[in-house]
Amino acid sequence: MRLCRFGQPGQERPGVVDAQGRIRDLSAHLTDITPADVTPAGLARIARIDIDSLPLVEQGVRHAAPVAGIRKFIAIGLNYRDHAEEAGMAIPDEPVIFTKAITCICGPHDNIVQPRESTRLDWEVELGVVIGTEARSVGEAQALDFVAGYCVVNDVSERAFQLQSSQWDKGKGCDTFGPLGPWLVTRDEIADPQNLDMWLDVNGERRQTGNTRTMIFTVAQIVSYVSRYITLQPGDVLCTGTPPGVGMGMKPHPQWLQPGDTVRLWIEGLGEQQQTVVSAP
Amino acid sequence: MRLCRFGQPGQERPGVVDAQGRIRDLSAHLTDITPADVTPAGLARIARIDIDSLPLVEQGVRHAAPVAGIRKFIAIGLNYRDHAEEAGMAIPDEPVIFTKAITCICGPHDNIVQPRESTRLDWEVELGVVIGTEARSVGEAQALDFVAGYCVVNDVSERAFQLQSSQWDKGKGCDTFGPLGPWLVTRDEIADPQNLDMWLDVNGERRQTGNTRTMIFTVAQIVSYVSRYITLQPGDVLCTGTPPGVGMGMKPHPQWLQPGDTVRLWIEGLGEQQQTVVSAP
Repeated sequence: MRLCRFGQPGQERPGVVDAQGRIRDLSAHLTDITPADVTPAGLARIARIDIDSLPLVEQGVRHAAPVAGIRKFIAIGLNYRDHAEEAGMAIPDEPVIFTKAITCICGPHDNIVQPRESTRLDWEVELGVVIGTEARSVGEAQALDFVAGYCVVNDVSERAFQLQSSQWDKGKGCDTFGPLGPWLVTRDEIADPQNLDMWLDVNGERRQTGNTRTMIFTVAQIVSYVSRYITLQPGDVLCTGTPPGVGMGMKPHPQWLQPGDTVRLWIEGLGEQQQTVVSAP
Repeated sequence: MRLCRFGQPGQERPGVVDAQGRIRDLSAHLTDITPADVTPAGLARIARIDIDSLPLVEQGVRHAAPVAGIRKFIAIGLNYRDHAEEAGMAIPDEPVIFTKAITCICGPHDNIVQPRESTRLDWEVELGVVIGTEARSVGEAQALDFVAGYCVVNDVSERAFQLQSSQWDKGKGCDTFGPLGPWLVTRDEIADPQNLDMWLDVNGERRQTGNTRTMIFTVAQIVSYVSRYITLQPGDVLCTGTPPGVGMGMKPHPQWLQPGDTVRLWIEGLGEQQQTVVSAP
Protein backbone atom coordinates (compact mmCIF):
# COMPACT_ATOMS: atom_id res chain seq x y z
CA MET A 1 0.00 0.00 0.00
CA ARG A 2 0.92 3.62 -0.51
CA LEU A 3 -0.47 5.64 2.38
CA CYS A 4 -0.55 9.41 2.50
CA ARG A 5 -2.06 12.37 4.28
CA PHE A 6 -3.58 15.27 2.37
CA GLY A 7 -5.10 18.66 3.06
CA GLN A 8 -4.08 21.97 4.54
CA PRO A 9 -1.81 22.07 7.63
CA GLY A 10 -3.77 21.13 10.72
CA GLN A 11 -6.64 19.73 8.64
CA GLU A 12 -4.95 16.70 7.10
CA ARG A 13 -6.91 13.58 6.30
CA PRO A 14 -5.71 10.03 5.68
CA GLY A 15 -5.51 8.63 2.17
CA VAL A 16 -4.41 5.63 0.19
CA VAL A 17 -3.23 5.53 -3.42
CA ASP A 18 -5.22 3.25 -5.72
CA ALA A 19 -3.96 1.13 -8.61
CA GLN A 20 -4.44 4.07 -10.99
CA GLY A 21 -2.33 6.34 -8.80
CA ARG A 22 -5.29 8.34 -7.52
CA ILE A 23 -5.69 9.27 -3.86
CA ARG A 24 -8.70 7.74 -2.11
CA ASP A 25 -10.02 9.29 1.09
CA LEU A 26 -9.71 6.99 4.13
CA SER A 27 -11.52 9.38 6.50
CA ALA A 28 -14.54 7.14 6.89
CA HIS A 29 -12.28 4.46 8.36
CA LEU A 30 -9.48 6.39 10.13
CA THR A 31 -9.24 9.85 11.67
CA ASP A 32 -5.59 10.14 10.63
CA ILE A 33 -2.54 7.98 9.93
CA THR A 34 -0.98 7.76 13.36
CA PRO A 35 1.84 5.60 14.74
CA ALA A 36 -0.79 3.04 15.81
CA ASP A 37 -1.96 2.77 12.20
CA VAL A 38 1.49 1.77 10.91
CA THR A 39 1.84 -1.20 13.28
CA PRO A 40 1.23 -4.63 11.73
CA ALA A 41 -2.29 -4.65 13.22
CA GLY A 42 -2.99 -1.13 11.98
CA LEU A 43 -1.75 -1.84 8.48
CA ALA A 44 -3.70 -5.11 8.34
CA ARG A 45 -6.85 -3.21 9.24
CA ILE A 46 -6.29 -0.73 6.41
CA ALA A 47 -5.48 -3.57 4.00
CA ARG A 48 -8.94 -5.07 4.58
CA ILE A 49 -10.66 -1.91 3.29
CA ASP A 50 -12.01 -2.01 -0.28
CA ILE A 51 -9.94 0.82 -1.69
CA ASP A 52 -11.92 1.21 -4.89
CA SER A 53 -15.07 1.95 -2.89
CA LEU A 54 -13.49 4.99 -1.22
CA PRO A 55 -14.15 8.56 -2.42
CA LEU A 56 -11.61 9.98 -4.88
CA VAL A 57 -9.68 13.03 -3.69
CA GLU A 58 -9.38 16.03 -5.98
CA GLN A 59 -6.09 16.30 -7.85
CA GLY A 60 -3.58 18.93 -6.77
CA VAL A 61 -4.37 18.65 -3.08
CA ARG A 62 -1.50 19.37 -0.69
CA HIS A 63 0.41 16.33 0.54
CA ALA A 64 1.49 16.27 4.20
CA ALA A 65 4.03 13.97 5.81
CA PRO A 66 2.50 10.47 5.53
CA VAL A 67 2.40 9.81 9.29
CA ALA A 68 1.06 12.20 11.97
CA GLY A 69 2.48 12.38 15.46
CA ILE A 70 5.95 11.06 14.63
CA ARG A 71 7.84 10.82 17.92
CA LYS A 72 11.45 10.43 16.85
CA PHE A 73 13.34 11.37 13.70
CA ILE A 74 16.78 9.82 13.82
CA ALA A 75 19.44 10.19 11.16
CA ILE A 76 22.60 8.40 10.13
CA GLY A 77 25.59 10.40 8.92
CA LEU A 78 27.95 9.58 6.04
CA ASN A 79 26.48 6.25 4.92
CA TYR A 80 27.26 6.03 1.19
CA ARG A 81 30.61 4.61 0.15
CA ASP A 82 30.77 6.74 -3.01
CA HIS A 83 29.85 9.88 -1.04
CA ALA A 84 32.58 9.17 1.53
CA GLU A 85 35.11 8.66 -1.27
CA GLU A 86 34.02 11.86 -3.05
CA ALA A 87 34.33 13.79 0.20
CA GLY A 88 37.70 12.21 0.99
CA MET A 89 36.37 11.12 4.38
CA ALA A 90 37.10 7.89 6.19
CA ILE A 91 34.43 5.23 6.03
CA PRO A 92 32.96 4.99 9.54
CA ASP A 93 33.33 1.75 11.52
CA GLU A 94 29.83 2.09 12.95
CA PRO A 95 26.80 4.20 12.04
CA VAL A 96 26.94 7.80 13.27
CA ILE A 97 23.63 8.71 14.92
CA PHE A 98 22.22 12.19 15.19
CA THR A 99 18.73 13.65 15.60
CA LYS A 100 16.42 15.83 13.57
CA ALA A 101 13.90 17.71 15.75
CA ILE A 102 10.39 16.48 14.95
CA THR A 103 9.18 20.05 14.53
CA CYS A 104 11.15 20.12 11.25
CA ILE A 105 8.81 17.60 9.63
CA CYS A 106 6.71 18.96 6.75
CA GLY A 107 4.96 17.89 3.59
CA PRO A 108 6.94 16.70 0.55
CA HIS A 109 6.09 19.74 -1.56
CA ASP A 110 5.98 22.39 1.16
CA ASN A 111 8.36 25.32 0.94
CA ILE A 112 11.80 25.05 2.52
CA VAL A 113 12.08 28.12 4.75
CA GLN A 114 15.62 29.45 4.90
CA PRO A 115 16.22 30.47 8.54
CA ARG A 116 17.42 33.92 9.47
CA GLU A 117 21.23 34.02 9.50
CA SER A 118 21.40 30.97 7.24
CA THR A 119 24.19 31.14 4.66
CA ARG A 120 24.84 27.49 3.79
CA LEU A 121 21.54 25.78 3.10
CA ASP A 122 21.98 22.32 1.58
CA TRP A 123 20.03 19.29 0.30
CA GLU A 124 20.29 15.55 0.93
CA VAL A 125 18.04 12.96 -0.73
CA GLU A 126 17.65 10.02 1.65
CA LEU A 127 15.75 6.79 2.06
CA GLY A 128 13.43 7.14 5.07
CA VAL A 129 12.56 4.07 7.11
CA VAL A 130 9.32 4.12 9.11
CA ILE A 131 9.21 1.82 12.12
CA GLY A 132 6.11 -0.34 12.59
CA THR A 133 6.91 -2.36 15.72
CA GLU A 134 8.73 -1.36 18.90
CA ALA A 135 12.37 -2.35 18.46
CA ARG A 136 14.81 -2.76 21.33
CA SER A 137 18.14 -4.50 20.67
CA VAL A 138 16.82 -6.40 17.69
CA GLY A 139 19.13 -8.60 15.62
CA GLU A 140 20.08 -7.72 12.07
CA ALA A 141 18.38 -10.82 10.66
CA GLN A 142 15.04 -9.81 12.18
CA ALA A 143 15.40 -6.04 11.83
CA LEU A 144 13.30 -5.54 8.70
CA ASP A 145 10.35 -7.19 10.46
CA PHE A 146 10.20 -4.04 12.59
CA VAL A 147 9.85 -1.77 9.55
CA ALA A 148 6.42 -0.56 8.42
CA GLY A 149 7.66 0.92 5.17
CA TYR A 150 9.70 3.52 3.39
CA CYS A 151 9.46 7.12 2.22
CA VAL A 152 11.51 9.82 0.57
CA VAL A 153 13.22 12.28 2.95
CA ASN A 154 15.02 15.49 2.13
CA ASP A 155 17.46 15.83 5.04
CA VAL A 156 17.69 19.61 4.63
CA SER A 157 20.75 20.92 6.42
CA GLU A 158 22.28 24.28 7.29
CA ARG A 159 25.99 23.57 7.18
CA ALA A 160 27.09 26.68 9.08
CA PHE A 161 24.72 25.80 11.91
CA GLN A 162 25.58 22.08 11.68
CA LEU A 163 29.33 22.49 11.84
CA GLN A 164 29.58 25.47 14.17
CA SER A 165 29.91 23.26 17.23
CA SER A 166 30.85 19.59 17.40
CA GLN A 167 27.20 18.54 17.45
CA TRP A 168 25.18 18.54 14.23
CA ASP A 169 21.60 18.63 15.56
CA LYS A 170 21.43 22.45 15.52
CA GLY A 171 21.74 22.55 11.74
CA LYS A 172 19.39 19.65 11.07
CA GLY A 173 16.14 20.47 12.86
CA CYS A 174 15.01 23.93 11.74
CA ASP A 175 11.36 24.20 10.70
CA THR A 176 10.76 22.69 7.21
CA PHE A 177 14.10 20.81 7.23
CA GLY A 178 12.28 17.47 7.09
CA PRO A 179 10.06 17.03 4.02
CA LEU A 180 8.65 13.48 4.20
CA GLY A 181 6.63 11.62 1.59
CA PRO A 182 4.59 11.86 -0.60
CA TRP A 183 3.77 8.30 0.53
CA LEU A 184 4.58 5.75 3.13
CA VAL A 185 5.12 2.71 0.90
CA THR A 186 4.63 -0.44 2.94
CA ARG A 187 7.50 -2.86 3.18
CA ASP A 188 5.81 -5.57 1.11
CA GLU A 189 5.97 -3.31 -1.96
CA ILE A 190 9.75 -2.81 -1.81
CA ALA A 191 11.38 -6.05 -2.89
CA ASP A 192 14.90 -4.94 -1.95
CA PRO A 193 15.57 -1.72 -0.03
CA GLN A 194 19.23 -2.09 -0.98
CA ASN A 195 18.60 -1.64 -4.69
CA LEU A 196 16.73 1.64 -5.10
CA ASP A 197 17.83 4.34 -7.50
CA MET A 198 17.56 7.94 -6.36
CA TRP A 199 18.30 11.42 -7.64
CA LEU A 200 17.99 15.07 -6.66
CA ASP A 201 17.84 18.12 -8.94
CA VAL A 202 18.31 21.80 -8.07
CA ASN A 203 16.68 24.19 -10.55
CA GLY A 204 16.46 21.35 -13.06
CA GLU A 205 20.12 20.36 -12.86
CA ARG A 206 21.00 16.91 -11.59
CA ARG A 207 23.01 17.19 -8.36
CA GLN A 208 22.73 13.80 -6.70
CA THR A 209 22.56 10.37 -8.29
CA GLY A 210 22.80 7.20 -6.29
CA ASN A 211 21.52 3.80 -5.40
CA THR A 212 20.95 2.35 -1.96
CA ARG A 213 23.26 -0.54 -2.87
CA THR A 214 26.25 1.70 -2.05
CA MET A 215 25.12 2.21 1.54
CA ILE A 216 27.89 1.40 4.03
CA PHE A 217 25.35 0.14 6.58
CA THR A 218 22.18 -1.46 5.23
CA VAL A 219 18.70 -0.62 6.44
CA ALA A 220 18.67 -3.84 8.48
CA GLN A 221 22.04 -3.01 10.04
CA ILE A 222 20.90 0.53 10.87
CA VAL A 223 17.62 -0.55 12.50
CA SER A 224 19.45 -3.21 14.50
CA TYR A 225 22.27 -0.88 15.51
CA VAL A 226 20.13 2.09 16.55
CA SER A 227 17.82 -0.22 18.53
CA ARG A 228 20.76 -1.27 20.73
CA TYR A 229 20.99 2.31 22.03
CA ILE A 230 17.62 3.95 21.44
CA THR A 231 14.28 2.15 21.61
CA LEU A 232 12.42 2.63 18.35
CA GLN A 233 8.65 3.02 18.38
CA PRO A 234 5.97 2.75 15.70
CA GLY A 235 6.02 5.84 13.52
CA ASP A 236 9.64 6.70 14.29
CA VAL A 237 11.53 7.66 11.14
CA LEU A 238 15.16 6.86 10.41
CA CYS A 239 16.92 8.55 7.54
CA THR A 240 19.78 6.60 6.22
CA GLY A 241 22.39 8.91 4.73
CA THR A 242 22.82 10.54 1.36
CA PRO A 243 24.65 9.63 -1.88
CA PRO A 244 27.22 11.92 -3.57
CA GLY A 245 26.37 15.39 -4.79
CA VAL A 246 25.43 17.64 -1.89
CA GLY A 247 26.06 21.37 -2.19
CA MET A 248 28.84 21.32 0.40
CA GLY A 249 30.85 18.94 -1.78
CA MET A 250 30.56 20.75 -5.10
CA LYS A 251 33.73 21.67 -7.01
CA PRO A 252 35.37 24.10 -7.41
CA HIS A 253 33.14 25.82 -4.84
CA PRO A 254 30.30 24.70 -2.62
CA GLN A 255 26.85 25.74 -3.78
CA TRP A 256 24.08 26.69 -1.40
CA LEU A 257 20.33 26.96 -1.79
CA GLN A 258 18.90 30.45 -2.20
CA PRO A 259 15.35 31.76 -1.99
CA GLY A 260 13.57 30.96 -5.26
CA ASP A 261 15.51 27.75 -5.90
CA THR A 262 13.53 24.60 -6.54
CA VAL A 263 14.59 21.15 -5.36
CA ARG A 264 13.20 17.95 -6.84
CA LEU A 265 14.07 14.51 -5.51
CA TRP A 266 12.97 10.97 -6.24
CA ILE A 267 13.55 7.45 -5.01
CA GLU A 268 12.54 4.40 -7.04
CA GLY A 269 9.12 3.15 -5.95
CA LEU A 270 8.71 5.89 -3.33
CA GLY A 271 7.70 8.88 -5.45
CA GLU A 272 8.92 12.40 -5.89
CA GLN A 273 9.16 15.57 -3.83
CA GLN A 274 9.49 19.18 -4.97
CA GLN A 275 10.22 22.15 -2.76
CA THR A 276 10.77 25.85 -3.32
CA VAL A 277 13.15 27.74 -1.05
CA VAL A 278 11.73 30.87 0.59
CA SER A 279 13.14 33.35 3.11
CA ALA A 280 12.09 33.26 6.75
CA PRO A 281 9.33 35.81 7.36
CA MET B 1 2.29 24.87 41.93
CA ARG B 2 4.11 21.59 42.09
CA LEU B 3 2.57 19.22 39.56
CA CYS B 4 3.35 15.52 39.35
CA ARG B 5 2.21 12.23 37.90
CA PHE B 6 1.93 9.13 40.04
CA GLY B 7 1.11 5.43 39.66
CA GLN B 8 2.53 2.44 37.87
CA PRO B 9 3.90 2.77 34.31
CA GLY B 10 1.07 3.14 31.84
CA GLN B 11 -1.45 3.88 34.61
CA GLU B 12 -0.18 7.27 35.76
CA ARG B 13 -2.56 9.85 37.12
CA PRO B 14 -2.13 13.62 37.52
CA GLY B 15 -1.40 15.11 40.91
CA VAL B 16 -0.58 18.35 42.65
CA VAL B 17 1.39 18.84 45.85
CA ASP B 18 -0.44 20.66 48.64
CA ALA B 19 0.95 23.10 51.20
CA GLN B 20 1.78 20.19 53.54
CA GLY B 21 3.77 18.40 50.82
CA ARG B 22 1.14 15.73 50.24
CA ILE B 23 0.07 14.63 46.77
CA ARG B 24 -3.55 15.36 45.89
CA ASP B 25 -5.23 13.46 43.04
CA LEU B 26 -6.22 15.68 40.10
CA SER B 27 -7.94 12.87 38.18
CA ALA B 28 -11.41 14.33 38.62
CA HIS B 29 -10.25 17.40 36.70
CA LEU B 30 -7.62 16.14 34.26
CA THR B 31 -6.96 12.78 32.61
CA ASP B 32 -3.21 13.39 32.71
CA ILE B 33 -0.68 16.24 32.69
CA THR B 34 -0.10 16.71 28.98
CA PRO B 35 1.72 19.42 27.04
CA ALA B 36 -1.62 21.27 26.71
CA ASP B 37 -1.89 21.36 30.50
CA VAL B 38 1.42 23.20 30.94
CA THR B 39 0.47 26.08 28.64
CA PRO B 40 -0.53 29.31 30.38
CA ALA B 41 -4.21 28.46 29.82
CA GLY B 42 -3.75 24.92 31.08
CA LEU B 43 -1.87 25.99 34.20
CA ALA B 44 -4.45 28.72 34.91
CA ARG B 45 -7.18 26.09 34.75
CA ILE B 46 -5.37 23.91 37.28
CA ALA B 47 -4.68 26.92 39.50
CA ARG B 48 -8.42 27.56 39.83
CA ILE B 49 -8.98 24.13 41.40
CA ASP B 50 -9.42 24.01 45.20
CA ILE B 51 -6.44 21.78 45.96
CA ASP B 52 -7.41 21.03 49.55
CA SER B 53 -10.70 19.52 48.37
CA LEU B 54 -8.90 16.88 46.27
CA PRO B 55 -8.40 13.29 47.49
CA LEU B 56 -5.09 12.58 49.19
CA VAL B 57 -2.83 10.04 47.48
CA GLU B 58 -1.31 7.24 49.55
CA GLN B 59 2.30 7.82 50.54
CA GLY B 60 5.04 5.86 48.80
CA VAL B 61 3.32 5.82 45.44
CA ARG B 62 5.60 5.73 42.39
CA HIS B 63 6.37 9.08 40.80
CA ALA B 64 6.46 9.30 37.01
CA ALA B 65 7.93 12.08 34.90
CA PRO B 66 5.73 15.12 35.63
CA VAL B 67 4.56 15.63 32.04
CA ALA B 68 3.20 12.93 29.70
CA GLY B 69 3.74 12.97 25.96
CA ILE B 70 6.89 15.08 25.95
CA ARG B 71 7.81 15.65 22.30
CA LYS B 72 11.36 16.94 22.48
CA PHE B 73 14.14 16.55 25.05
CA ILE B 74 16.98 18.85 24.12
CA ALA B 75 20.22 19.19 26.04
CA ILE B 76 23.03 21.70 26.32
CA GLY B 77 26.61 20.50 26.69
CA LEU B 78 29.34 21.93 28.91
CA ASN B 79 27.46 24.85 30.45
CA TYR B 80 29.04 25.38 33.88
CA ARG B 81 32.11 27.56 34.12
CA ASP B 82 33.55 25.60 37.07
CA HIS B 83 32.94 22.29 35.29
CA ALA B 84 34.71 23.54 32.16
CA GLU B 85 37.65 24.69 34.25
CA GLU B 86 37.80 21.40 36.13
CA ALA B 87 37.74 19.48 32.86
CA GLY B 88 40.34 21.76 31.33
CA MET B 89 38.02 22.43 28.41
CA ALA B 90 37.51 25.68 26.56
CA ILE B 91 34.41 27.67 27.46
CA PRO B 92 32.12 27.46 24.42
CA ASP B 93 31.22 30.64 22.54
CA GLU B 94 27.67 29.46 21.97
CA PRO B 95 25.53 26.73 23.56
CA VAL B 96 26.22 23.23 22.23
CA ILE B 97 22.90 21.53 21.42
CA PHE B 98 22.33 17.79 21.39
CA THR B 99 19.29 15.55 21.81
CA LYS B 100 18.12 12.94 24.28
CA ALA B 101 15.66 10.45 22.75
CA ILE B 102 12.25 10.87 24.41
CA THR B 103 12.08 7.11 25.00
CA CYS B 104 14.74 7.60 27.70
CA ILE B 105 12.35 9.55 29.93
CA CYS B 106 11.39 7.82 33.18
CA GLY B 107 10.27 8.54 36.71
CA PRO B 108 12.60 10.26 39.19
CA HIS B 109 13.03 7.15 41.36
CA ASP B 110 12.88 4.47 38.67
CA ASN B 111 15.87 2.19 38.23
CA ILE B 112 18.64 3.22 35.85
CA VAL B 113 19.08 0.24 33.53
CA GLN B 114 22.69 -0.22 32.48
CA PRO B 115 22.61 -1.18 28.78
CA ARG B 116 24.32 -4.28 27.47
CA GLU B 117 27.92 -3.48 26.48
CA SER B 118 27.90 -0.41 28.73
CA THR B 119 31.21 0.15 30.54
CA ARG B 120 31.18 3.88 31.35
CA LEU B 121 27.84 4.78 32.87
CA ASP B 122 27.83 8.29 34.33
CA TRP B 123 25.58 10.78 36.14
CA GLU B 124 24.78 14.48 35.58
CA VAL B 125 22.46 16.52 37.81
CA GLU B 126 20.82 19.21 35.69
CA LEU B 127 18.18 21.90 35.86
CA GLY B 128 15.35 20.94 33.51
CA VAL B 129 13.30 23.66 31.84
CA VAL B 130 9.78 22.79 30.69
CA ILE B 131 8.41 24.91 27.85
CA GLY B 132 4.87 26.29 28.22
CA THR B 133 4.37 28.33 25.06
CA GLU B 134 5.55 27.69 21.51
CA ALA B 135 8.85 29.52 21.07
CA ARG B 136 10.33 30.40 17.69
CA SER B 137 13.23 32.89 17.57
CA VAL B 138 12.27 34.51 20.84
CA GLY B 139 14.43 37.24 22.34
CA GLU B 140 16.41 36.73 25.52
CA ALA B 141 14.43 39.37 27.42
CA GLN B 142 11.14 37.56 26.73
CA ALA B 143 12.46 33.99 26.85
CA LEU B 144 11.37 33.13 30.39
CA ASP B 145 7.77 33.99 29.46
CA PHE B 146 7.84 30.82 27.33
CA VAL B 147 8.80 28.63 30.31
CA ALA B 148 6.13 26.69 32.21
CA GLY B 149 8.43 25.64 35.00
CA TYR B 150 11.39 23.62 36.15
CA CYS B 151 12.29 20.11 37.24
CA VAL B 152 15.27 18.01 38.25
CA VAL B 153 16.88 15.95 35.46
CA ASN B 154 19.52 13.27 35.72
CA ASP B 155 21.19 13.43 32.29
CA VAL B 156 22.39 9.83 32.54
CA SER B 157 25.14 9.22 30.00
CA GLU B 158 27.15 6.29 28.69
CA ARG B 159 30.52 7.84 27.89
CA ALA B 160 31.82 5.03 25.69
CA PHE B 161 28.68 5.26 23.55
CA GLN B 162 28.66 9.07 23.68
CA LEU B 163 32.24 9.56 22.59
CA GLN B 164 32.62 6.64 20.19
CA SER B 165 31.64 8.79 17.21
CA SER B 166 31.62 12.55 16.92
CA GLN B 167 27.92 12.72 17.79
CA TRP B 168 26.82 12.37 21.41
CA ASP B 169 23.16 11.38 20.99
CA LYS B 170 23.91 7.63 20.96
CA GLY B 171 25.15 7.72 24.56
CA LYS B 172 22.41 10.01 25.86
CA GLY B 173 19.12 8.39 24.90
CA CYS B 174 19.14 4.79 26.15
CA ASP B 175 16.03 3.71 28.05
CA THR B 176 15.96 5.14 31.63
CA PHE B 177 18.66 7.75 30.85
CA GLY B 178 16.19 10.57 31.53
CA PRO B 179 14.76 10.57 35.06
CA LEU B 180 12.54 13.69 35.33
CA GLY B 181 10.86 15.08 38.41
CA PRO B 182 9.54 14.47 41.00
CA TRP B 183 7.66 17.68 40.23
CA LEU B 184 7.16 20.27 37.59
CA VAL B 185 7.50 23.42 39.71
CA THR B 186 5.80 26.29 37.95
CA ARG B 187 7.90 29.31 37.08
CA ASP B 188 6.17 31.61 39.57
CA GLU B 189 7.60 29.55 42.45
CA ILE B 190 11.24 29.94 41.37
CA ALA B 191 12.28 33.50 42.10
CA ASP B 192 15.61 33.23 40.30
CA PRO B 193 16.53 30.19 38.18
CA GLN B 194 20.13 31.46 38.21
CA ASN B 195 20.54 30.95 41.94
CA LEU B 196 19.65 27.35 42.70
CA ASP B 197 21.90 25.04 44.70
CA MET B 198 22.22 21.44 43.54
CA TRP B 199 24.05 18.28 44.49
CA LEU B 200 24.38 14.64 43.52
CA ASP B 201 25.51 11.70 45.69
CA VAL B 202 26.60 8.23 44.62
CA ASN B 203 26.26 5.59 47.33
CA GLY B 204 25.98 8.36 49.91
CA GLU B 205 29.15 10.18 48.85
CA ARG B 206 28.87 13.67 47.50
CA ARG B 207 30.00 13.81 43.86
CA GLN B 208 28.54 16.99 42.43
CA THR B 209 27.96 20.32 44.11
CA GLY B 210 26.95 23.40 42.21
CA ASN B 211 24.73 26.38 41.76
CA THR B 212 23.02 27.56 38.59
CA ARG B 213 24.75 30.91 39.00
CA THR B 214 27.89 29.43 37.41
CA MET B 215 26.08 28.59 34.19
CA ILE B 216 27.87 29.94 31.13
CA PHE B 217 24.56 30.49 29.32
CA THR B 218 21.54 31.34 31.45
CA VAL B 219 18.14 29.68 31.10
CA ALA B 220 16.87 32.75 29.24
CA GLN B 221 19.83 32.67 26.88
CA ILE B 222 19.40 28.95 26.24
CA VAL B 223 15.68 29.18 25.50
CA SER B 224 16.27 32.13 23.20
CA TYR B 225 19.23 30.50 21.45
CA VAL B 226 17.66 27.09 20.88
CA SER B 227 14.45 28.71 19.60
CA ARG B 228 16.43 30.37 16.79
CA TYR B 229 17.17 26.91 15.37
CA ILE B 230 14.52 24.54 16.70
CA THR B 231 10.93 25.50 17.42
CA LEU B 232 10.08 24.70 21.02
CA GLN B 233 6.62 23.43 21.91
CA PRO B 234 4.69 23.14 25.17
CA GLY B 235 6.00 20.21 27.18
CA ASP B 236 9.43 20.20 25.51
CA VAL B 237 12.19 19.80 28.09
CA LEU B 238 15.59 21.46 27.91
CA CYS B 239 18.34 20.31 30.21
CA THR B 240 20.92 22.92 30.85
CA GLY B 241 24.28 21.31 31.59
CA THR B 242 25.89 19.93 34.70
CA PRO B 243 28.19 21.34 37.41
CA PRO B 244 31.56 19.75 38.35
CA GLY B 245 31.87 16.21 39.65
CA VAL B 246 30.80 13.74 37.00
CA GLY B 247 32.37 10.27 37.02
CA MET B 248 34.31 10.90 33.83
CA GLY B 249 36.18 13.74 35.52
CA MET B 250 37.14 12.00 38.76
CA LYS B 251 40.80 11.89 39.82
CA PRO B 252 43.01 9.94 39.72
CA HIS B 253 40.71 7.67 37.74
CA PRO B 254 37.23 8.04 36.30
CA GLN B 255 34.51 6.25 38.24
CA TRP B 256 31.55 4.61 36.58
CA LEU B 257 28.18 3.50 37.88
CA GLN B 258 27.76 -0.24 38.52
CA PRO B 259 24.66 -2.33 39.15
CA GLY B 260 23.62 -1.88 42.78
CA ASP B 261 24.84 1.70 43.02
CA THR B 262 22.40 4.33 44.21
CA VAL B 263 22.30 7.89 42.92
CA ARG B 264 20.59 10.73 44.78
CA LEU B 265 20.27 14.23 43.38
CA TRP B 266 18.59 17.42 44.44
CA ILE B 267 18.00 20.95 43.22
CA GLU B 268 16.85 23.74 45.52
CA GLY B 269 13.07 24.11 45.35
CA LEU B 270 12.67 21.29 42.82
CA GLY B 271 12.95 18.22 45.05
CA GLU B 272 15.03 15.10 45.07
CA GLN B 273 15.49 11.99 42.93
CA GLN B 274 16.93 8.62 43.85
CA GLN B 275 17.77 5.82 41.44
CA THR B 276 19.30 2.38 41.74
CA VAL B 277 21.42 1.03 38.90
CA VAL B 278 20.42 -2.40 37.57
CA SER B 279 21.71 -4.54 34.71
CA ALA B 280 19.83 -4.81 31.45
CA PRO B 281 17.70 -7.95 31.44
